[in-house]
Amino acid sequence: MYRGFVFTEDLSEPSKFYGLLSDVSPVGSETVEVSESSGRILASDVEARRPSPPFTRSAMDGYAVRAEDAKPGAVLKVVGSSRIGEGEPEVEVGPGEAAYVDTGAPVPPGADAVIPVEFVEETEDGIEVKEPVEPGDNLDEKGSFVEEGEVVYEAGHEVTPVDVAVMIELGVDEVEVRERLRVAVITTGDELVPDPGDVESPYDVPDCIGPALQARLESEPFVEFLGRELVPDDEKELREALEEASSEAHVVVLTGGSSVGRKDVVKNVLADLYDRFVHGIKFRPGRPFGLAVGEDGVAFTLPGWPTSALTTFETWVFPALKVLAGADPRVVAFKTSDHDVKAKRSVGVIARVKIEDGRAEALPRDVSSNLQLFRETDALLLLPPGAGPGDDGYLIPVRRFEDWSKVIENLEREGR
Amino acid sequence: MYRGFVFTEDLSEPSKFYGLLSDVSPVGSETVEVSESSGRILASDVEARRPSPPFTRSAMDGYAVRAEDAKPGAVLKVVGSSRIGEGEPEVEVGPGEAAYVDTGAPVPPGADAVIPVEFVEETEDGIEVKEPVEPGDNLDEKGSFVEEGEVVYEAGHEVTPVDVAVMIELGVDEVEVRERLRVAVITTGDELVPDPGDVESPYDVPDCIGPALQARLESEPFVEFLGRELVPDDEKELREALEEASSEAHVVVLTGGSSVGRKDVVKNVLADLYDRFVHGIKFRPGRPFGLAVGEDGVAFTLPGWPTSALTTFETWVFPALKVLAGADPRVVAFKTSDHDVKAKRSVGVIARVKIEDGRAEALPRDVSSNLQLFRETDALLLLPPGAGPGDDGYLIPVRRFEDWSKVIENLEREGR
Repeated sequence: MYRGFVFTEDLSEPSKFYGLLSDVSPVGSETVEVSESSGRILASDVEARRPSPPFTRSAMDGYAVRAEDAKPGAVLKVVGSSRIGEGEPEVEVGPGEAAYVDTGAPVPPGADAVIPVEFVEETEDGIEVKEPVEPGDNLDEKGSFVEEGEVVYEAGHEVTPVDVAVMIELGVDEVEVRERLRVAVITTGDELVPDPGDVESPYDVPDCIGPALQARLESEPFVEFLGRELVPDDEKELREALEEASSEAHVVVLTGGSSVGRKDVVKNVLADLYDRFVHGIKFRPGRPFGLAVGEDGVAFTLPGWPTSALTTFETWVFPALKVLAGADPRVVAFKTSDHDVKAKRSVGVIARVKIEDGRAEALPRDVSSNLQLFRETDALLLLPPGAGPGDDGYLIPVRRFEDWSKVIENLEREGR
Repeated sequence: MYRGFVFTEDLSEPSKFYGLLSDVSPVGSETVEVSESSGRILASDVEARRPSPPFTRSAMDGYAVRAEDAKPGAVLKVVGSSRIGEGEPEVEVGPGEAAYVDTGAPVPPGADAVIPVEFVEETEDGIEVKEPVEPGDNLDEKGSFVEEGEVVYEAGHEVTPVDVAVMIELGVDEVEVRERLRVAVITTGDELVPDPGDVESPYDVPDCIGPALQARLESEPFVEFLGRELVPDDEKELREALEEASSEAHVVVLTGGSSVGRKDVVKNVLADLYDRFVHGIKFRPGRPFGLAVGEDGVAFTLPGWPTSALTTFETWVFPALKVLAGADPRVVAFKTSDHDVKAKRSVGVIARVKIEDGRAEALPRDVSSNLQLFRETDALLLLPPGAGPGDDGYLIPVRRFEDWSKVIENLEREGR
């Protein structure tokens, strides 16, 4: 079973990378109020604790009747009403009788249909029927949308704000969710200064990946962000920082120090501290991406260029974090063949693209060293080795695509 | 100028609704650290405080040379090196000379190109050139991506985690952002009970809109959620609750009490407490949607059915909140003509759709009373009056579209 990875150990078998993570148990679970569950991941199935609708409910303002009585011209006696907020109706509808019902109010016993107010004439003696109704018309039967006990969400589902409403309607007040996945970030690099305010010379490079990863992780309710640290390319310091971080965290995300020609500090420490360490994927950017798995948890190592680090995080690490947190392997990815991107024969590409009239267009000169191109980037387009324009790729949006003003113009023009 | 609204007062002129909001001033501004700015809205333009790259930077591990010296067969004297993290290079490259450079390290003065290590042979006397280079090869000139002082983000932009990295690279450590938009929620309805745990009889309806709106609003960093209250359909109680909420909030979102056949409490109080109140839009669901504008701020009123309330919130209120908070009018909306939805001639439709192989398919029996259909809903499809299959509609995603496992399958298949 695949759970969301395109990792590859030897550049030909994507499943090997994943194999390492399949042994890792998901995090524990806890019970929270439904109203606090948005953004969390369900740890067990959720069953309806009441049916929907919870009672047979009028879909219109009108009169509850027996359909067999509701022949055009018939006059029915109004014996009472069922109004919103009044609870169980006191009235019962017998032959030749009718009861007024609000939209959303319970249909009284005895009635099997509702005639909308506009299809009757109110007279002194009661109501005169203008249009016939069939049994079941203009009402929603108790349990016709969901029956009590029905499984409405499965374990692994990530709760949205709308799901909160859906569950509350079904009488669910608490749910079992996965504990937050505890994630720490370690950025490495002798050239980096931790704070942009501390930059003194043109040769000081502020650490920009750490703050970006922090912002990204803090925006996800299923993650508990533990903190971030910048350490120099020193094996002893990195080992200490990693040992401390991994003692608290389920996952440590590291950057830098793992590409060819750089000091191999990150690779060495990961290989040493974790049971298994693999690196290298057949996608650009991000080829030095790596994954370590041990008893204490999991570590990912991202390339050192900010562009490559952030691209790799979004593409490979983020879905992995979701799976480690117990979620379904779903990501925001849209399939498209309408693009101008071409991958090399032996290496896939993660291209930064603009969306123009629905078409994904590669940014010119998309080099790893140019983080600034992200300002023009609407999405990442993931294309397998050997694929080109016309072949299916997967879009992962990094910002919103459509200028709302265009939507307005079109709606107005078409609406006239 | 349009800023993101399709509101309509009399069902024929969308711009009238918007006219009401154009007089409302956006919220104030404050200065925050860039690392704390993700999800906030810029109140002023952001300029680069250093160029990118901040110095002429090698794009490869190799040797910095004068391109005119780098003829195949030439032997150049290695006079020093420029390594990552060592700051300003001490070496200068003269005629017939070369200096080793790390990827990302400054190119020493005198050199105008970098020869990658694989294109030289290291000899006792220095390096022997195997392949020629042109001036500018394998390096990124200082300021070639962004010049100091260049405007990189405009006021109104909503900061993403990646933008945090982009700004930090440019030496920006603080930005001016809009204050959070203070939003309060008031749900109304005699039939509602505030807590799903308090439901006693089948006729008790738990308030599900309030918690869903709270979860939605709390997930947006540009919003400060002030709280929510459930009040009965009582004019005096609603007036008190609304006066209290609007004294603290920029925006109050109300639900219920404004459709035909219900008590007109919300409409009456809004018309009374605000300078201007309009309601009624030509889209289903959500026709009783309304907007009130006064000196103290803005109020929106949503329909009482949870389905209609949540649909209307996502479609009309959320973009409006962004604009009131000073943002560009961008929403997550994708244009598509590949759908099977049909609008009535005089009323637009906001249909709940599933995405199947990229096509938007309307859910069967999409009635306002059936909140449970949201469990199958991938997106809302917004279609103007009179439009049908083949006409452009706008998709607003409510959950993720693509099952990642399909992505994997395709990538693996195509990757072989």
